[in-house]
Amino acid sequence: MQKRYIMAPGPTAAAPEVLLKMAEPIMHHRSPQFSEILTKVRENLKWLFKTENDVFILASSGTGAMEASVVNLLSQGDTAIVVRGGKFGERWTELCETYGVNVINIDVPWGEAVDVSDVAKLLDENPDVKAVFVQAHETSTGVKHPVEELGSLLKDRETCLVVDAISAMGVYDIQTDAWGLDIVVSGSQKAFGLPPGLAMLSVSEKAWKLAEKATLPRYYFNLLKERKALAKQTTAFTSAVSLIIGLGEVLEDMKKMGHDNLFAHHRILAEATRAGITAMGLEIFAKVPSESITVVKAPDGIDGQEVVKMLREEFGITIAGGQAQLKGKIFRISHMGHLDQWDMIVALAAVERALNKLGHPVDFGKGVAAAEAYFAAH
Amino acid sequence: MQKRYIMAPGPTAAAPEVLLKMAEPIMHHRSPQFSEILTKVRENLKWLFKTENDVFILASSGTGAMEASVVNLLSQGDTAIVVRGGKFGERWTELCETYGVNVINIDVPWGEAVDVSDVAKLLDENPDVKAVFVQAHETSTGVKHPVEELGSLLKDRETCLVVDAISAMGVYDIQTDAWGLDIVVSGSQKAFGLPPGLAMLSVSEKAWKLAEKATLPRYYFNLLKERKALAKQTTAFTSAVSLIIGLGEVLEDMKKMGHDNLFAHHRILAEATRAGITAMGLEIFAKVPSESITVVKAPDGIDGQEVVKMLREEFGITIAGGQAQLKGKIFRISHMGHLDQWDMIVALAAVERALNKLGHPVDFGKGVAAAEAYFAAH
Repeated sequence: MQKRYIMAPGPTAAAPEVLLKMAEPIMHHRSPQFSEILTKVRENLKWLFKTENDVFILASSGTGAMEASVVNLLSQGDTAIVVRGGKFGERWTELCETYGVNVINIDVPWGEAVDVSDVAKLLDENPDVKAVFVQAHETSTGVKHPVEELGSLLKDRETCLVVDAISAMGVYDIQTDAWGLDIVVSGSQKAFGLPPGLAMLSVSEKAWKLAEKATLPRYYFNLLKERKALAKQTTAFTSAVSLIIGLGEVLEDMKKMGHDNLFAHHRILAEATRAGITAMGLEIFAKVPSESITVVKAPDGIDGQEVVKMLREEFGITIAGGQAQLKGKIFRISHMGHLDQWDMIVALAAVERALNKLGHPVDFGKGVAAAEAYFAAH
Repeated sequence: MQKRYIMAPGPTAAAPEVLLKMAEPIMHHRSPQFSEILTKVRENLKWLFKTENDVFILASSGTGAMEASVVNLLSQGDTAIVVRGGKFGERWTELCETYGVNVINIDVPWGEAVDVSDVAKLLDENPDVKAVFVQAHETSTGVKHPVEELGSLLKDRETCLVVDAISAMGVYDIQTDAWGLDIVVSGSQKAFGLPPGLAMLSVSEKAWKLAEKATLPRYYFNLLKERKALAKQTTAFTSAVSLIIGLGEVLEDMKKMGHDNLFAHHRILAEATRAGITAMGLEIFAKVPSESITVVKAPDGIDGQEVVKMLREEFGITIAGGQAQLKGKIFRISHMGHLDQWDMIVALAAVERALNKLGHPVDFGKGVAAAEAYFAAH
């Protein structure tokens, strides 16, 4: 019997209490009992998103809500700017191109954050751009993009700002209304520590104005239909009832912690992990690292995939490797989900052990010691 | 503490063992352990669907897989025939129209099954029809459409047959390959007795040929992308891991029962319930009733919604009322999910009690007696 640890960027570890709550008898999605839960969940999502906008819950992975953002805001032949600095930035481009939207890509080197002045320049040159698509946190590289600054840039323009916060919401501060974020997308399997299958997104008044004129075809992801359903305290199609009940539990816990403690929790895990990794003589890949995951450069001569494989096969620990051009070059440790300081100690010790086994010189305990010291001080 | 019973047409009752299985620690969707489970689930789905075609699993409600069928098979300006005999028939029409597909509707009176010769006639008049869309079981009316006969009709034509079997698959016999069904759509929250959030669909070679030429835009529901992912024993986007693990459990149970016992189980529940309803002096609404649900006409002077409300509020039992034009005129009792003969006894007794309380003359125990007699004999 091997004990299993999941410290991947998603799906993440779930709290057993939440898993058991989701194991309660199935509730009917159109019952008054479920409507009450759904309405409470939506209120709590507004609290988490820091928004007065309606927040919708779709039965899909996060990509479904990304698609919903594109098809509800735009029409064929519209132009959009995409910040493309990783696999998920590429997804925005692919989504837009699928629907005949002209894309102006800002190709940001993987591992770096977008320069807001590049976006400003493109907007000045292309005043007809309908929307800017960006990741709050690019999960493939571990980079945080400057979403607050992009919000300021777009606030007084007609262009909408669409933020993929799938691996950011619930991890660190995202001020939807104060920063002027028009659509913010989130997913169940990241900070919420829930199984995959739910996507949540908020929609601003500015975004609704575009949505009412948008002509891209949409049915399952039609947010106008969801808005009508929301007024009746339901969803347009069968709600994923069990996952929503789990989401309700997690949100209550988050509210009890409060925004500040919630964000501090992730920040401390991330900074202790980075301290440990650095103390081992390894490098952090992301230039502007997030509190969601720590992305580590595989040292020279070591294949990052081998580190991931050894943790999984020999130690029962799931972390993630690199995707696409980063395959073999990095490995990624999550701070999201039902994890605490002791899990980070485990992750660091396991990395030390794996590197040692793979022939990379390691002083056992050095990374762990640095993390312990960080935790002790915070 | 009110004990809760769910006998709605979906979501349906889940087995506690399955709910607890889904409460096991989260597994990573790209891990070899999960790939193994996914591959086994797909094999078992092929067994259930009676097909050699690949069966795909999407993280969405059933409507998502209906949309996938439309957008993967068709191009703008194509023509399709829709059998429209209820709320879900209407959904096919809405989906096609959303994407600029010309629809020839066959308007079947709600409660009746389509006449295959009407479809044959339309196909002869419109040889360019790319696909026929139909429900195996129209959940809003409780009617079974003649899917086998439609299969025979289309077998030697180029036109594809797309079957919404969301509330049919796993309930009664659907022979995907033998009957020549090109796409068959299913959902987790019906016969499988799982929470909502998964859709499954099979795709024939004939359907792939259309899919390769189809130009409707699709991203999250792109089956060509899913086919590539399937070859790597994964899904294109994050798999809904917990639901798929639950599906694996249910399919193992179904396989242990075997097709015949599985279908007999639902047939006996349905026939006993109909015997009970008829013995109470009530009428069955559907002309060709399914083994999935029993749809009962509300007796004169009784609002079907009141029956549903009383069962829910006073007795803790969730059944369903009528939708759209049938609202108040019917009520619907499910035979799908984790239900047995005693649940049907409970449902019938509760209907007797509700009708009595609503002022309709009822002989207590008469419906129950007829069901008991039916169960005793089978």
